[in-house]
Amino acid sequence: MFLLQVIFTLAQTDPLPSWNEGATKDAIISFVKDVSTEGSDKFVPKEYRIATFDNDGTLWCEKPLIQGLYVGYRVKKMAAKNPALRKKQPYKAILEGDKAYLHKLTEKDLVSLIIQTHTGTSEAEFDQDVREFFNTAKDHNGKAMHQLLYQPQLELLQFLRDNGFRVYICSGGTIEFVRAISQEYYGIPSEQVIGTRFKYLYKDSANINDLYRQPAIVSFNDKQEKPVNIRYHIGKRPILACGNEGGGGDIYMLRYSQGNTYPSLQLLVDHDDNERESAYAEKDNKSLNWAKKYGWQVISMKKDWKRIFPE
Amino acid sequence: MFLLQVIFTLAQTDPLPSWNEGATKDAIISFVKDVSTEGSDKFVPKEYRIATFDNDGTLWCEKPLIQGLYVGYRVKKMAAKNPALRKKQPYKAILEGDKAYLHKLTEKDLVSLIIQTHTGTSEAEFDQDVREFFNTAKDHNGKAMHQLLYQPQLELLQFLRDNGFRVYICSGGTIEFVRAISQEYYGIPSEQVIGTRFKYLYKDSANINDLYRQPAIVSFNDKQEKPVNIRYHIGKRPILACGNEGGGGDIYMLRYSQGNTYPSLQLLVDHDDNERESAYAEKDNKSLNWAKKYGWQVISMKKDWKRIFPE
Repeated sequence: MFLLQVIFTLAQTDPLPSWNEGATKDAIISFVKDVSTEGSDKFVPKEYRIATFDNDGTLWCEKPLIQGLYVGYRVKKMAAKNPALRKKQPYKAILEGDKAYLHKLTEKDLVSLIIQTHTGTSEAEFDQDVREFFNTAKDHNGKAMHQLLYQPQLELLQFLRDNGFRVYICSGGTIEFVRAISQEYYGIPSEQVIGTRFKYLYKDSANINDLYRQPAIVSFNDKQEKPVNIRYHIGKRPILACGNEGGGGDIYMLRYSQGNTYPSLQLLVDHDDNERESAYAEKDNKSLNWAKKYGWQVISMKKDWKRIFPE
Repeated sequence: MFLLQVIFTLAQTDPLPSWNEGATKDAIISFVKDVSTEGSDKFVPKEYRIATFDNDGTLWCEKPLIQGLYVGYRVKKMAAKNPALRKKQPYKAILEGDKAYLHKLTEKDLVSLIIQTHTGTSEAEFDQDVREFFNTAKDHNGKAMHQLLYQPQLELLQFLRDNGFRVYICSGGTIEFVRAISQEYYGIPSEQVIGTRFKYLYKDSANINDLYRQPAIVSFNDKQEKPVNIRYHIGKRPILACGNEGGGGDIYMLRYSQGNTYPSLQLLVDHDDNERESAYAEKDNKSLNWAKKYGWQVISMKKDWKRIFPE
């Protein structure tokens, strides 16, 4: 009697209520159940049930890029302290919203801008500043940052944890920026966040015992650098990796996962919903082409997600 | 009745049976109980109960240096394939046990030797080779590698885990070398090992999906680099850090831990037991001086450890 009740309850409980029924949802649920059921052909011991998720465009939106909003927030703060910046590019363009100028910035310009806005404070000050940003910032539609998370993915993270997975974020965003909200937004502790890293110096004296961020990025955690940092950080290939099309940055993480000797699943979020989010694609369509070539499961935001953002 | 039995059993069970009674053992047990008991003044939430341990000279012996033995093992293998090495220094000196020559090697020579012996294979081949070494190698006394672990420390690792700690190794040894045995020897999974890192390149094609170790070390995880890598890897300061005197390599890890806003404990193993292990000290005595200056708990191998190695 009791057992039947449990089975009945389980059958009634949908672990992914914001996902539409269909091949994608089926593939995810089957995979998770297979690898976590002892005796199954595809069973994977718990210590190898590792999942890695990209962040921008995969767990929350990337148009607008949230760390980009933070750059704007920092530039405003910096200009308030040092008004000369108002006349200096690219600060002037950012403060005035000069899109024509901003679109001409090269990747080198952008990296330099991230360095300028993300260094020069202690770690504790930086952390507090980022938290303040997350508590006050709004996007162009007036939405708070936590409203830009993808609700179906929050359910997927929980479903994985409920089945013995250890879930990591593997983001192109800088590591401390993501860590400031990883526990609160995703239930992912700081030690399970991999990201772009600044150079650090440790200083110790009678009054100082702290790390100081230097104006240099030592690892830009994108493309082929994602497998490298997963190797350093975890030392195991993930059995589930989830990224998104748009910048081509996640394809090597998915490939690396696919080289696992255990059964594995690769998921690629397709930004194809212009009504509820944004529709965009890569010029060469590489991520979607590789998904087809290598048999990755494509998540159509339009078809597979009942809703996109939290209520 | 049942509760009394449990209390009685707990009172009878010594979590650190290989530690002699005294101030060191008391300090460790009090600290661990304080930070893990809800309602205690010093209570630390579980997610912040992070401990970091150096490896060489802290969890296992460093005289001989086990990774040094592995270098010798590799050189023998390399010379078997390429006999020309027998006439080339420093390989010749290693193969012939020419101590006079070896003592003249600079740190740069040693790093170069590690690079030469630790690259040029795939990751899977390297891992298999290291495992073979651990299963077959003996030290100068004919002891197998797992017999060079410190038994009291194995008990401490378990005691910490039993009280909700997450325990990391933070080693000067290269990360994959330590990971090859971290689970089996210490119960510490690969994702909780921090170490010296080689440069990696990820290659992906129709036949290849792997990381390739390059002949360059990108982070030598010693001295000030330990706090830097703890920050990258964990994102939290440890509340317990344990190192050893001898090379001065752990003092910044202990200092970094001491900057925690939570209560913290610093432990420094003193190699003062020439009968059962080796007695040695730093020329400037820096680690022991800092221990005194900053109030770290010194572990005397001679006085505090009932036995040193496993039976």
